[in-house]
Amino acid sequence: MAAPILSKKSVCIVTGATRGLGRSIALSFSKSLPSGSLLILLSRNIGLLNEVVSSIHQRDGIRAVAAAYDQGSRDENTFDSLISHCMGKAEALPDEFEQSILINNAGTLEPIDFMRDLDNTAEMSNYFQINLVGCLALTAKFLQFFKSSVTSPRIRIIVNISSLAAISPMNSWGLYCMAKAARDMMLKVLASEEENIRTLNYAPGPLPTDMLTTASEKTKDLDLKKWFEEQIAQKTLVDCDDSTRKLMAILDKNTFENGSHVDYYDEI
Amino acid sequence: MAAPILSKKSVCIVTGATRGLGRSIALSFSKSLPSGSLLILLSRNIGLLNEVVSSIHQRDGIRAVAAAYDQGSRDENTFDSLISHCMGKAEALPDEFEQSILINNAGTLEPIDFMRDLDNTAEMSNYFQINLVGCLALTAKFLQFFKSSVTSPRIRIIVNISSLAAISPMNSWGLYCMAKAARDMMLKVLASEEENIRTLNYAPGPLPTDMLTTASEKTKDLDLKKWFEEQIAQKTLVDCDDSTRKLMAILDKNTFENGSHVDYYDEI
Repeated sequence: MAAPILSKKSVCIVTGATRGLGRSIALSFSKSLPSGSLLILLSRNIGLLNEVVSSIHQRDGIRAVAAAYDQGSRDENTFDSLISHCMGKAEALPDEFEQSILINNAGTLEPIDFMRDLDNTAEMSNYFQINLVGCLALTAKFLQFFKSSVTSPRIRIIVNISSLAAISPMNSWGLYCMAKAARDMMLKVLASEEENIRTLNYAPGPLPTDMLTTASEKTKDLDLKKWFEEQIAQKTLVDCDDSTRKLMAILDKNTFENGSHVDYYDEI
Repeated sequence: MAAPILSKKSVCIVTGATRGLGRSIALSFSKSLPSGSLLILLSRNIGLLNEVVSSIHQRDGIRAVAAAYDQGSRDENTFDSLISHCMGKAEALPDEFEQSILINNAGTLEPIDFMRDLDNTAEMSNYFQINLVGCLALTAKFLQFFKSSVTSPRIRIIVNISSLAAISPMNSWGLYCMAKAARDMMLKVLASEEENIRTLNYAPGPLPTDMLTTASEKTKDLDLKKWFEEQIAQKTLVDCDDSTRKLMAILDKNTFENGSHVDYYDEI
């Protein structure tokens, strides 16, 4: 049986780490990963990000660095030296670590619209820039930096924060469904292309995040809107830390099929 | 049992209609659709497109108009009045037709690269602009123009030219797989959102088109490249007209599940 993923000395990059699930993953991983591990936290909001880093610094033997990161940036330089910059800031070298982890958590929901109303090309272009192009560029840079070769094999783990929407259509959430389906496929292709890689599409369940508040306020489809309102009213949402625990359990069991889609509610 | 789709007087829009499968669909549909039907053919290459229109004009009772169309355009105006412009050119009104059909055939393959090399954000942005944003904008305009309401129900049929790559990862074809997966999801959402709609993701098989020549020359994964070379050498590719016949048989049988993915090789 494969070793638990989180038992190895790791460098772990988390995007969108200031709030919600990203923050929960950063904090929870910092408590589970062995001494010497490094967390690289990325987000547009460097102020909030530094607070997360401060919390992690209270734990012995775990390093954390933060960097401002706009996944929707159209400036090539955003991605070019980001990882090496963060590694330098932490005075860390790739070979210090047994493995590298990338958690592609950053993502956006709006514009929320029925397909028949999705005709604003600038808005849609921006949506795919953040949710597909930026995610692809960061992932490529991650694979280039933490290269694996025959002489120097190196395990890379990539987690995509997916959604039920990746496999099941949700009315008036067309762009979100399309981007999530594309990102699930991204990790399927990666799993097929690369040696020494583990990739997982994890659907975290409905979380009480800002995105869910937006969903309950702005979803155009009335049935779906009502469903979100009821989840909030009846407090049946999944706590971010609970969802992170499930993700950690999946990674530690380490039996998931490469590139597969696993939901919070799935038996593992 | 539902009536054969191609037996009804239709207005039918085909993107990428100058060559390969798009051209075959335009010509074959013009021979099957009843008198009074109108074909609207779109492509970047208006010269070649006019030749296809001339061939169709030889058939009695079928109208055809052509318009230059760049699906990757970032100019909102590209999509805004395209359909009404074409309808005007044909002196046609929406209510003349029993149904409207949109064949989203236009698409691109390059850049072909392994995921680890996909770090050119401008190229990727352009890729999703053509294959997702433009396709979404045209589809929204189609639904807005051929609106269905309770008082005036109108059948709309949307076919996405999909690929095996939409459901199965292909090494070094990451962008193509992602866009095709997203476009399959697009028609699943549409099927769920709209009344009076039929949507089909049709994977046409390996066709002897320019795209396949590019595939055999530029595919980075050596096993996949070899597969394409063998298909070409052994002449085991699917003829465009054969694939169109299969698509027409699926539409005429009209029992496909809305939003489903049907392959050329599937039993229907």
